[in-house]
Amino acid sequence: MRLGALEAGGTKMVCAIGDEKGNIFERASFPTLTPEETMGGLIEFFKDKGIEALGIGSFGPLCLDKNAENFGDITTTPKLAWKDYPLRKAFVDALNIPVGIDTDVNAAALGEATYGAGQGIDSLVYYTIGTGVGGGALVDGVLVHGMVHPEMGHMLLRPDPRDPAPHGFCPYHDGCIEGMANGPAIEKRWGISAKELPEDHVAWDIEAEYLAQMCVNTIVTLSPKKIVLGGGVMHQMHLFPRIRKRTLELLNGYVAHPAILENIDDYIVPPGLGDNAGAVGSLLLAVQALND
Amino acid sequence: MRLGALEAGGTKMVCAIGDEKGNIFERASFPTLTPEETMGGLIEFFKDKGIEALGIGSFGPLCLDKNAENFGDITTTPKLAWKDYPLRKAFVDALNIPVGIDTDVNAAALGEATYGAGQGIDSLVYYTIGTGVGGGALVDGVLVHGMVHPEMGHMLLRPDPRDPAPHGFCPYHDGCIEGMANGPAIEKRWGISAKELPEDHVAWDIEAEYLAQMCVNTIVTLSPKKIVLGGGVMHQMHLFPRIRKRTLELLNGYVAHPAILENIDDYIVPPGLGDNAGAVGSLLLAVQALND
Repeated sequence: MRLGALEAGGTKMVCAIGDEKGNIFERASFPTLTPEETMGGLIEFFKDKGIEALGIGSFGPLCLDKNAENFGDITTTPKLAWKDYPLRKAFVDALNIPVGIDTDVNAAALGEATYGAGQGIDSLVYYTIGTGVGGGALVDGVLVHGMVHPEMGHMLLRPDPRDPAPHGFCPYHDGCIEGMANGPAIEKRWGISAKELPEDHVAWDIEAEYLAQMCVNTIVTLSPKKIVLGGGVMHQMHLFPRIRKRTLELLNGYVAHPAILENIDDYIVPPGLGDNAGAVGSLLLAVQALND
Repeated sequence: MRLGALEAGGTKMVCAIGDEKGNIFERASFPTLTPEETMGGLIEFFKDKGIEALGIGSFGPLCLDKNAENFGDITTTPKLAWKDYPLRKAFVDALNIPVGIDTDVNAAALGEATYGAGQGIDSLVYYTIGTGVGGGALVDGVLVHGMVHPEMGHMLLRPDPRDPAPHGFCPYHDGCIEGMANGPAIEKRWGISAKELPEDHVAWDIEAEYLAQMCVNTIVTLSPKKIVLGGGVMHQMHLFPRIRKRTLELLNGYVAHPAILENIDDYIVPPGLGDNAGAVGSLLLAVQALND
């Protein structure tokens, strides 16, 4: 089955053609400008590919209520050109095929739970830590939406006493994870790009502290069977052992499950699909749309 | 249909007889001693009541994996007499009827979503703030279990600069909500029972701050359609407007949904079933067990 996948991001739009097994045959990337400037190229890309359905993993906030008139629209984004843009409807109208849509991180969570690090797991949380921080969750095999959809990057955390900028840099929130631990926060805090910070710099201890707190709050709230940490910041693989160690210290034995106490190396993990988690998940959203 | 409900708590066991509509006909309370001392009276209470099924909302941690050998057992509790006690199995063996079990707070969440403050809502979080703090969640109509089950009371939060005990009093965690905001924490912090603190004491501002942070982290993680706050501390009704106001301030417009921005009075609410949420939810767990 040929399917389309769109990863709609704030800086680029990644289009892919693949199948229901998560294979990707072809890929193209377009800069995210205004809808008028961007949408034509995306539709052109998908138009003659013989795809049966399209899945979109998008930046948000999105309306994901299938019964709402604005289902599939981008809603109150600060990217003003895309505010209230009917992203899903534009593709339905242009391609005349089923189109599924979810948040980028929910798509990645679905991809990882199906073909990635959590194959066959019905309860998994996927975080991206990069320019922003976001989280998607699968609970009992269903992607969590609720009233809107999670915005896990804005979870409030305890400041690290070693942090020279304990309030973080989020324009909305004092001390949320995105403002304290995304890539730009590391750079603003130390005046040097994260990539240039040596591994033994205290910056990474603080980063691990915040990401471990994030894991702890995720464990006590959602009790997932696995936590997958992706995104550009997590390309720093030395963070994984630090985050695992600190998560164990912070939990302090409270959640007494062998998956945590004995196998944390297999509990907090990098994406099995690498940077393809979102694209593969979007293909699976296309499958869901076909079956809806 | 006659059903049994057991609210199994650390200090008392509340037994009730009711029906699938949440009506409660009869109730009795027993102190929680050891299983040997306590279980006989509970079984005796339920034995001749003509109930078709029993639902249990219990303190934890519990094994809630229906495929596990120890499904329905209390597991690693610090209440040592109950450690590894097969609570569900004891009632199955004694009463020979279907027995459902979940955490006390998941039971209350189910009760509130069915007959309480969130009637007909498929996504709701229920917190109890009392001697302990715990949270239960319904996502897409399903109670969240995941790997074990949530332990939301141990979510880490930012210390309030006005707090003379910003690390809280949890023996496990530095700065978790239970250790900072349960009833005993208020008493330890101020050296006076929470009930005797006047409404204009800064203690309540700090309490509202922590409970608002808890609501914020819940909103960004689970995006529930309603948050119900119950338990002894929430009998202080003046906390509700303070928590709502502070939740709005902390979110700072980030989750732009009318249920929050315009109707927060109807979004963060006391239990519609009052202190019966757990008993009614347990009756519904009995119904689920019948249908399983």
